[in-house]
Amino acid sequence: MKRTPLTVAVVGFGGMGGHHVEHMEELTYFQVKGIQDIRKSQEELARKKGLEVYPDLSAVVEDEEVDVVLIATPNDSHRDIAVSAMRHGKHVICEKPVTMNAAEMEDIMQVEKETGQLFVVHQNRRWDEDYLSVKAIQDLETIGEVFHVECRIHGSRGIPGDWRQKKAQGGGMLLDWGVHLADRQLQMFDERVTHVNCTFQHIRNMEVDDGFRLMLTFESGKTAYMEVGTFNYIGLPLWYVNGTQGSAVIHSWDMDGKVTRLETDREPDARPIQAGAGLTKTMAPRFDDGTVKDLPLPRIDASIEEFYDNVYQTIHGEESIIVKNDEVLRVMRLLEKAFESVEKMQTVPFE
Amino acid sequence: MKRTPLTVAVVGFGGMGGHHVEHMEELTYFQVKGIQDIRKSQEELARKKGLEVYPDLSAVVEDEEVDVVLIATPNDSHRDIAVSAMRHGKHVICEKPVTMNAAEMEDIMQVEKETGQLFVVHQNRRWDEDYLSVKAIQDLETIGEVFHVECRIHGSRGIPGDWRQKKAQGGGMLLDWGVHLADRQLQMFDERVTHVNCTFQHIRNMEVDDGFRLMLTFESGKTAYMEVGTFNYIGLPLWYVNGTQGSAVIHSWDMDGKVTRLETDREPDARPIQAGAGLTKTMAPRFDDGTVKDLPLPRIDASIEEFYDNVYQTIHGEESIIVKNDEVLRVMRLLEKAFESVEKMQTVPFE
Repeated sequence: MKRTPLTVAVVGFGGMGGHHVEHMEELTYFQVKGIQDIRKSQEELARKKGLEVYPDLSAVVEDEEVDVVLIATPNDSHRDIAVSAMRHGKHVICEKPVTMNAAEMEDIMQVEKETGQLFVVHQNRRWDEDYLSVKAIQDLETIGEVFHVECRIHGSRGIPGDWRQKKAQGGGMLLDWGVHLADRQLQMFDERVTHVNCTFQHIRNMEVDDGFRLMLTFESGKTAYMEVGTFNYIGLPLWYVNGTQGSAVIHSWDMDGKVTRLETDREPDARPIQAGAGLTKTMAPRFDDGTVKDLPLPRIDASIEEFYDNVYQTIHGEESIIVKNDEVLRVMRLLEKAFESVEKMQTVPFE
Repeated sequence: MKRTPLTVAVVGFGGMGGHHVEHMEELTYFQVKGIQDIRKSQEELARKKGLEVYPDLSAVVEDEEVDVVLIATPNDSHRDIAVSAMRHGKHVICEKPVTMNAAEMEDIMQVEKETGQLFVVHQNRRWDEDYLSVKAIQDLETIGEVFHVECRIHGSRGIPGDWRQKKAQGGGMLLDWGVHLADRQLQMFDERVTHVNCTFQHIRNMEVDDGFRLMLTFESGKTAYMEVGTFNYIGLPLWYVNGTQGSAVIHSWDMDGKVTRLETDREPDARPIQAGAGLTKTMAPRFDDGTVKDLPLPRIDASIEEFYDNVYQTIHGEESIIVKNDEVLRVMRLLEKAFESVEKMQTVPFE
């Protein structure tokens, strides 16, 4: 059945705003009518694409044709735009990180409740195939019970030279990438987080973190480590997973990696090996004795179209939303604890 | 000039005791006269090799022919054997970890001072080529100033089923491997450690750690991460190093790895790449644009013979000792802080 398109106005026509416009053009059931941006250059760009240019935010929210406001501005403006849009009867798709802190997200959720509009955050990285592959390894118990997960995002170009370098606008890598990594980790381990430890790197940027290390300890003792670095000229693997019966690694977004599974309960005695200037029996590798087996990574047919489709169907009452606001709020609370941990140079309790 | 050999008695004729005997047989300037061990099986083994078997420790330290007592027993017995040997006029070579804690090491240092004998700890992993290669990368500033170092020792066989599983005897991976990794890191970054954070893994052993994660923060903000795991079926790289002008990786004891160095001060603007379900400009890889260059790892001609040679020459007043007791004591103090960090689930200050 052909869908009647929802009319969209994009606020903030930068990298992500443009990305959404492209997706929506392909999907056809969202139709972008116009954009609003404070930069003349972006207004020009929009006009060339045949999009309407709204002079200011009031013009956007007062346009009765608009069903959905898509927010892709710097983080410090999300709350106010979202609240205004919902109060004018618009649904809202919002870029991540949703807000500067949990309190702002609570404000949004209060207005969502009052107005009955939909507010949803574009946690697009829940649809990354690498993440879904790791989640499948966990869910299928391919390597027994997964008890430790590491995810690293390593680049070598520093932080982009825009608002992402400014604390007042919600810059820094913890808010930019950390919000994705934490969101996914909370999807994977369905239990309380008891402890949060975070440290920041300030290689060239003293105002916001240009890298972070975040360790979460869960109620059962499971642990998750998330790291982002922007001065890593060689990258460590994207994912590294330990289970009771094996390990898995994904080296990069190209999905190169493997699963190694323990195939025996009886461990043959190890022969000590020469390692550097010493002997080690503990760290002797496994020889080709059949005790472990390499398997390919599970491949998942993932598409971000599911996000847009789910938003469309939720607005029409046909599905419930996948990216839930209480999940998003929990991540914001967790990130606040991470900032607190950095500030105090301490592990801080959570939940 | 031919050296007059020093006569050695080995206390504890297990894996490491046997390893020393083999080395000393090759070197010729240490001559092993006999061994003492509480296990009949080890006494038999020694007799077959033509070594004398001492009935007990008193017999060892009272043997006037013995110049050097080599201690390779479980960790809880090191202090008393060392003190007794030195009080009987013997020099002592001791396995690591030197003692159960810093106070025991202080006792030993007091007796060393009183008796004028040499007491030296076999920190053999200062002679590992992989470590020396990393140290060379730092010292030669191949990648600018090194500000973060990671060292991981990953095995998949659990802890050996001997005293290393017992807390009372000083078992666990922090004392076994951590003492090496911390010792080397303190050699690399010559400054105060301000903060220590450590967590333990207890995958199968609840009494001692069968893996640990140790993060040190130094006065200048430099950081070092050390990890040991014994249920890692896929290993992460042995070394990973970040400098202001590049990164380096060493994958394994086979010395496979590389150095990647930044070759420019002007960063060309990155093109966003598709990564998973999203775009990223921050994490866009470097294309073949000459901004970075791969170099081979520096290769170091390292030999553990230098340790034995240095002990011999120090005893003869011809060199000063390489492995200094105040360095060893500092590592023990650091490990105590690591245990405290685990206990409190907190980052603890140090120095």
